[in-house]
Amino acid sequence: MIHVLHGDIVSASELGSLTTMKDGYLVSEDGRIVGVFSKLPERFRSAEIEDHSGTLILQGFADMHLHAPQYPMVGMGMDLQLLDWLERYTYRTEAAFADPVYARKIYRQLITELLRNGTTRVCMFASLHTDATLILMEELEEAGICGFVGKVNMDRNAKPYYQETLEQSKSETLRWLHESERFSKVKPILTPRFTPSCSNELMEWLGNIARERNLPVQSHLSENIQEIEWVRQLHPDTERYWESYAKYGLFKPGTLMAHCVYSDEVERKAMRDLGVTVVHCGDSNINVRSGVAPIRRMINEGMKVVVGSDIAGGAQISMLQVMQTAIRVSKVRNMETGEPFLTAAEAYYLGTSAGAEYFGDKPGFAEGNPLHAVVIDDASFPNTDSLSMEERLERAIYRATPSEIRAVYSEGRRIR
Amino acid sequence: MIHVLHGDIVSASELGSLTTMKDGYLVSEDGRIVGVFSKLPERFRSAEIEDHSGTLILQGFADMHLHAPQYPMVGMGMDLQLLDWLERYTYRTEAAFADPVYARKIYRQLITELLRNGTTRVCMFASLHTDATLILMEELEEAGICGFVGKVNMDRNAKPYYQETLEQSKSETLRWLHESERFSKVKPILTPRFTPSCSNELMEWLGNIARERNLPVQSHLSENIQEIEWVRQLHPDTERYWESYAKYGLFKPGTLMAHCVYSDEVERKAMRDLGVTVVHCGDSNINVRSGVAPIRRMINEGMKVVVGSDIAGGAQISMLQVMQTAIRVSKVRNMETGEPFLTAAEAYYLGTSAGAEYFGDKPGFAEGNPLHAVVIDDASFPNTDSLSMEERLERAIYRATPSEIRAVYSEGRRIR
Repeated sequence: MIHVLHGDIVSASELGSLTTMKDGYLVSEDGRIVGVFSKLPERFRSAEIEDHSGTLILQGFADMHLHAPQYPMVGMGMDLQLLDWLERYTYRTEAAFADPVYARKIYRQLITELLRNGTTRVCMFASLHTDATLILMEELEEAGICGFVGKVNMDRNAKPYYQETLEQSKSETLRWLHESERFSKVKPILTPRFTPSCSNELMEWLGNIARERNLPVQSHLSENIQEIEWVRQLHPDTERYWESYAKYGLFKPGTLMAHCVYSDEVERKAMRDLGVTVVHCGDSNINVRSGVAPIRRMINEGMKVVVGSDIAGGAQISMLQVMQTAIRVSKVRNMETGEPFLTAAEAYYLGTSAGAEYFGDKPGFAEGNPLHAVVIDDASFPNTDSLSMEERLERAIYRATPSEIRAVYSEGRRIR
Repeated sequence: MIHVLHGDIVSASELGSLTTMKDGYLVSEDGRIVGVFSKLPERFRSAEIEDHSGTLILQGFADMHLHAPQYPMVGMGMDLQLLDWLERYTYRTEAAFADPVYARKIYRQLITELLRNGTTRVCMFASLHTDATLILMEELEEAGICGFVGKVNMDRNAKPYYQETLEQSKSETLRWLHESERFSKVKPILTPRFTPSCSNELMEWLGNIARERNLPVQSHLSENIQEIEWVRQLHPDTERYWESYAKYGLFKPGTLMAHCVYSDEVERKAMRDLGVTVVHCGDSNINVRSGVAPIRRMINEGMKVVVGSDIAGGAQISMLQVMQTAIRVSKVRNMETGEPFLTAAEAYYLGTSAGAEYFGDKPGFAEGNPLHAVVIDDASFPNTDSLSMEERLERAIYRATPSEIRAVYSEGRRIR
């Protein structure tokens, strides 16, 4: 099946440089990109063309770190810092997902909002609950959003009403992995919440499962100074936080680590050497006052960096806002340290191609990639005709809301 | 004429504390507030009630600093710093308002967007052009948005195509003031762009006019380090930027000064002693990398502080986003210096009551205030029924978009 999108196409084929084609044709076959053409080649002339002329066709957005069961508390409790915020708000909110009816209702609301905002790929934390996690995966699959979802593991230091025993954590993880096999777009990712939440026995067991089944891993790293100190007390044999994951085999290619605000040179080098990806969550880092991550420095050092909304530490569901905030946070750091800040083109790369790379894509609208695209109608903004494509992209990042998002495609299929 | 709004009412009667009434009645007569009641008093029973039950009724939002002719460039050129950004983007964009047809078209778009976002009061910079400034005032008046608008004065250091002579600046200012007399909701405010843009003769003349006609003044102060240095070179007889306004009588009660990022203790004391109001524009200060203003410190010192979008240095037209950003920026400063950050309730006060005070109101929905209100339907967000009014306000600040803004009232009249 040949599919053609016609419009003003902007992709990020490398960090900081845009590939633009006004009035271009983005052609896919069976959901995979064939190419971008200035004139539609003869062989595709009989295909149906979706005419989005005059509007921007961007790459689909990848939200590489968010907590689905924290969706009900987005934008609340923002006067607390990380550990208090977990204690007083988060665990209570997540615990409610023991109820599958409630879980389905809330997850559908979240997914509707992701679709409205053009997010086509995700790496999500679910709650402790296997059933609710499977419901989330089912709803994502049905909506056409792709990615990874993890049932959270947590057998210590949480709340009596929201914690597993080691045995429960193991058996429920196995049940979840088994039942996840039925999904094709949404895959399981092992998700120890963070080191303080998981006993050494649980970490060791998860490391074994990760190796045996070749599963990816996601967690949190060096987000907050108190948290780092806590990890040091829990693992007196380690010097740095990352080692508490590494010693159990959880720090490896395919591992996503959110935040890394305080990762020093040694920790950053370990991440780079071991192929671990940093998920930068700038909004969350400001909201719960963790700090300002040295994201530009990480990029310059050759680390893999992607971005995430971190709902609900973050309060911005739109990945366009997440890109904006990555820029703003990098400017805060620029003013403090003189390190270069992120440009609009770079933020676009981080919110699209960098995330897609984690899923095995080449950057930009490259041949062979599954087609993930978002159509943004910027005609209602002033003076659109007189602007360059680069200016229109920058303005879309700062200005576009769900009202301007006219269509969303995931794996070649229109999902909104 | 009695007018009653029924709903969940939240007002900020002092900084940091909210007055809430679920299922309350906000009564106004001839556009002025009579009171907020938990049960509708007998004497108002025959009045028509607008039923907004289940939704939030908030105070109208006041945007105390924005550049109307920069609206077409919102969200663009954000990789430049202040002085370059003025040179390369801003003057060119503003110069286009020489054309009154274009001016009316663009100003209507801006006003539509302000209404959609619940902004009922403004202090605006227009361009150099008298005719376009009058068009802006006319369109605001017609839309029902209240406040001050200034024709910009600028007779040096701009561009050949966008600058006045001293004589033009004087005669056009007089013509503008004369023609402005026909407006009742929108009043003129003297607007020397900033010290580098105005000759001493022009400043002196504006100071005289301000005194003779008792006119308010708005300008920029201590936004950027290069700018401050430039002012020092232009006024070698002054030690600090504020003196370049004060020596001409432009630093007085009713003067609004945007930014004040680098105002030191002496400058802050002068502002406090002379009754000058600071307009904090956090988004703009980050975007063009000016710095992080010590807003909490200013408040603690007893200074008058309000907030502004500073379109187009700022890219957030929604005052809810401006409130969010004021919080975020204050958290950045909190992490740097330990100064307390702004809470959601405080940011709400700054975006509503603090601005209203500049117009002579008492804080909150006080008796006698003109009724400015925004109705936000938060029922589509999760779990609204189980939240406190304070939580709902916080979430509205972080989450509400024009889609949730269901009605807007200005001086008692529904304007959206």
